[in-house]
This record gives sequence, structure tokens and C-alpha cells, in this order.
Amino acid sequence: MPRYRLTVEYDGTPYVGFQRQSNGYAVQEAMERAIGKFTGETVTVHVAGRTDTGVHALGQVCHVDLAREWEARRVLDAINAHLVMADERIAILDVERMDEDFHARFSATNRHYLYRIVNRHQPIPLERERAWWVKRPLDVDAMQDAAAELIGTHDFTTFRAVQCQSKSPVKTLDRIVVSRSGELVTFRVSARSFLHNQVRSIVGTLKLVGEGRWTRQDVKEALEARDHQRCGALAPPHGLYLEKVDYDIAFTPVDTTPRPRRRKRRAGR
Amino acid sequence: MPRYRLTVEYDGTPYVGFQRQSNGYAVQEAMERAIGKFTGETVTVHVAGRTDTGVHALGQVCHVDLAREWEARRVLDAINAHLVMADERIAILDVERMDEDFHARFSATNRHYLYRIVNRHQPIPLERERAWWVKRPLDVDAMQDAAAELIGTHDFTTFRAVQCQSKSPVKTLDRIVVSRSGELVTFRVSARSFLHNQVRSIVGTLKLVGEGRWTRQDVKEALEARDHQRCGALAPPHGLYLEKVDYDIAFTPVDTTPRPRRRKRRAGR
Repeated sequence: MPRYRLTVEYDGTPYVGFQRQSNGYAVQEAMERAIGKFTGETVTVHVAGRTDTGVHALGQVCHVDLAREWEARRVLDAINAHLVMADERIAILDVERMDEDFHARFSATNRHYLYRIVNRHQPIPLERERAWWVKRPLDVDAMQDAAAELIGTHDFTTFRAVQCQSKSPVKTLDRIVVSRSGELVTFRVSARSFLHNQVRSIVGTLKLVGEGRWTRQDVKEALEARDHQRCGALAPPHGLYLEKVDYDIAFTPVDTTPRPRRRKRRAGR
Repeated sequence: MPRYRLTVEYDGTPYVGFQRQSNGYAVQEAMERAIGKFTGETVTVHVAGRTDTGVHALGQVCHVDLAREWEARRVLDAINAHLVMADERIAILDVERMDEDFHARFSATNRHYLYRIVNRHQPIPLERERAWWVKRPLDVDAMQDAAAELIGTHDFTTFRAVQCQSKSPVKTLDRIVVSRSGELVTFRVSARSFLHNQVRSIVGTLKLVGEGRWTRQDVKEALEARDHQRCGALAPPHGLYLEKVDYDIAFTPVDTTPRPRRRKRRAGR
């Protein structure tokens, strides 16, 4: 069956996370319904990074197998039309026809998360479900400095949710970049894969450093303790965005633009 | 009574606009409640620019008279605490103690509105209540060029809501700046005062120019027709923000920081 890669943006606020759950409505369910309305098929959407309730996506990647060949643009427009009609807070940003060896989850080589904090004294009505409101002034340099303790390969048991299903707590963090633009403080965190709640526990811990309540040494000791009780309070989900997923360049999209009809041979040639 | 100037940000989505209405909950009501919880008084909040249902504010200005003198920072923190407790989508950004000749509405010399469009093919889940989604590519230069027809003093009957209470349809538009940053197209519109729906009808009309459906000449003719039927469809409220209100520099805040106690005179002097 033809496989399609979908790049997806969503507002996580009204969903119980990406994955289908018994306790509420998930992004996956909304997408599968919209695709079902388009093709009439019952499909399963596979995802690069499962996101929790309230967590957003700017560039989530999914794949789905459809019974027939469609032009990529047609798939994009049809799914979006059904998502809009159903008043979903999900948009398909891009569709590419892939070979069957492409898998949204297993082929991913890197995942990039963005975390947004609005750091100001006053409440943040216009950003309420889009950022974490932190009142105390944050020292971005101190947070960036302490983040160095977490870069590289470590046992991240301290920064792992109790319900995490990963086989090993050892992960390799490639990048944590903390920066400020006015009131906005952003974290960009990249790795091949993450433990459950890893980004949110890292942000919650670095925030303590930014507030001057923890030192870089405290972060080091917390990591080395390999004890979930030792990390800072989990940063709330509504500041977190799955920004981008990388794949090996070996996975190249198949061209779906309709071929121009061949001209009939002229008589006499 | 001591007068306080409040600079206010709000998410207009859940309110029936700024002004108290019989048909729903208004920003004014929420603010008056929060102030009442703080001082125990029944107050009236006066506003620089009434905003409609769904319209946001980044720098709305209000004033309120309170029975006693408070430190400005204390007023800010107390009102915000009550707004947060009541789960309102309103924040007081700044408080200044003013003389009684200051009036949020009548002393204002200029009002600045921002209108945000996200101009892309795909839906905009993360910006849904913060911008107008326009699919067709917009020509920003054409919109800026056509906007020149509206700058200056004109009879803006074409760009005026039926229910507008202004005595005269003649207004002076100081500025319309249209610009693009990636998918985001913004309009900044400034004037001493506006007719009801004037900014939204101007944006709705310039959008037709941006889409190539109207020319600058069409805008000129629509303006000259002085006929409300001739303007483009009203742009939706959720893209509109009251950004800033200017006042004469003659209105200077009164210092409310507590004076240091005078040292007691030393004996013998």
C-alpha cells in the first residue's frame, strides 16, 4: 500500500495527547477520522513522537498507508478540509509519498523540542496555553551553563517519568540551547530519542537554576543520584512543542505530480 | 479621590467585548470585580478604546478612582492576584497614580491598532483565536499602496458599522503600515480616534487588494461612495489587537513610592 508521510501542527490543549486513549479524545483519533472521511478507509496513523496532554506540535511527523495512489497535494487538502470541518485544532503542513521502508517512528534520527517560558511579573493572558508563566527573573546564562551537565550520554533516571516505558534510562542529549528575547525564554532540546517527561523535567530543573535556587552543582548531583525524586518540579505541558523530526536523507519522497499525457504520434512518422 | 491609570492586556476570546453588556460577561465587569475584591469598593473602570467581542488588547488603557492612596505596585499586584484567582484572561501590565484631570478616554491623543493575518495554505491551529487565516497569497506591496487612499482626513462612512455612535463619519487616519514576516502579515493602523469597526473594514478591504480581487482604484471609489455596502467584508475580530494608546506628556504620573521616614532631630541641635 502507498505510504504517506504527514507533517503535522497541533494545539494540544483540547486533546489527551497524541495517542488514542480510553480517557478522552486524542490527536491520533481526530486524524484517523479525517482520513477516514476522505478515503473511506479505517487507517492507523503512526507517529514519530508521542506527545502528552496539552503538549503542542509545530512539526510532528506521522505516516499512514492508504489503499491507492493519490497526489500528495490532494491528500493534504482533503485531510485539512475534514479537520477544519470537524473544528479540530490540527493542520497537515506537508504530505509526501514515501517508500514502504520509511517509518515515522523507527526511521527518525533526531527529535527537536522547543519549550517556551514567558518570564515577567504580570500574568500572560494571550499566551496562557502556549507558554509557562514564570514570575521570578530567570538568569539565562546560568541555565545554559548548568545545561552542560546534561549534554551527552547519561543515565537520565532522575529526569524520567515513573510511567516511562523505555527499556533503558540511558539517552544521549545532543543539544540544549537556552535563550532570551525580551520576556520570552526558550529552550531547544535535541536528541535521537527521549524518555517520558524528560524535556519537561529538564526545563523544570533548569528553571530552579535560573531563579538562583539551584546551582550547576545541584544539577550534576541530581543527575548522578539517578533518583526521580531529585529532579525539579515538572514544567507544565502547555509550554512544550515538538518542533521538528529528522530523518536520514536516504528516505526521499516519491514524486506524485501527474505525468503529462504523452502526445499521440503524428501520422506518417 | 486618587485616580489610577491601568495598562491592560487581555485575550478577548471569552468576553463580549470591553464594555459591560446585558448579553454576557465583559472585560470591564471582570476588572471591576477584581478591583472590588481588592478594595471592597464598587468602582467604574473607564477605558480608552472600547473593543468588540473577541478583540484583544496588548496595551489598553483604563482609569479608576479609588477611595485611598495606594502604592502603584500594590494596586498592580492586588488586581492581578484577583484576576488570576478568578481565572480571567486579563492582566494589568502597569499602574500609575494620575492627577484627576487625566481621563483614559478623553485625554488620549492617539490609538494604535495591530491586525494579524496568517497567510498560508494550511489551517492555523496554534493561532486560531489570535489571527485571521487567509489562504490566498497576499501581495503586501499592493495593500500598502492602496492603503495610501485611506491615509489622511476622509469621510469614512464606507468603513463604519451601522451601529456606530460617532457624531461624524469624518476621521483622520495617521498611519497604515502593512508588512510581512514569513507567513505573518500585520497591519498597524493609527489615528486619534476610530469609527466602530473602522479597522476591521479597512483590513477586510485591503485583503481584497492583496488577493488581487480589488485595485487601489476600487478602494478609492469605495471610500468616495460613502456607502457601507461598498466596503470589503469585515475582517474577523480575533485578528485585532488594541496595541497602544498615547497621551499628552503633560499627564505625568504621581510618584507613589513610600517616602523614607524623616530622621528624628538629634538632641542638642
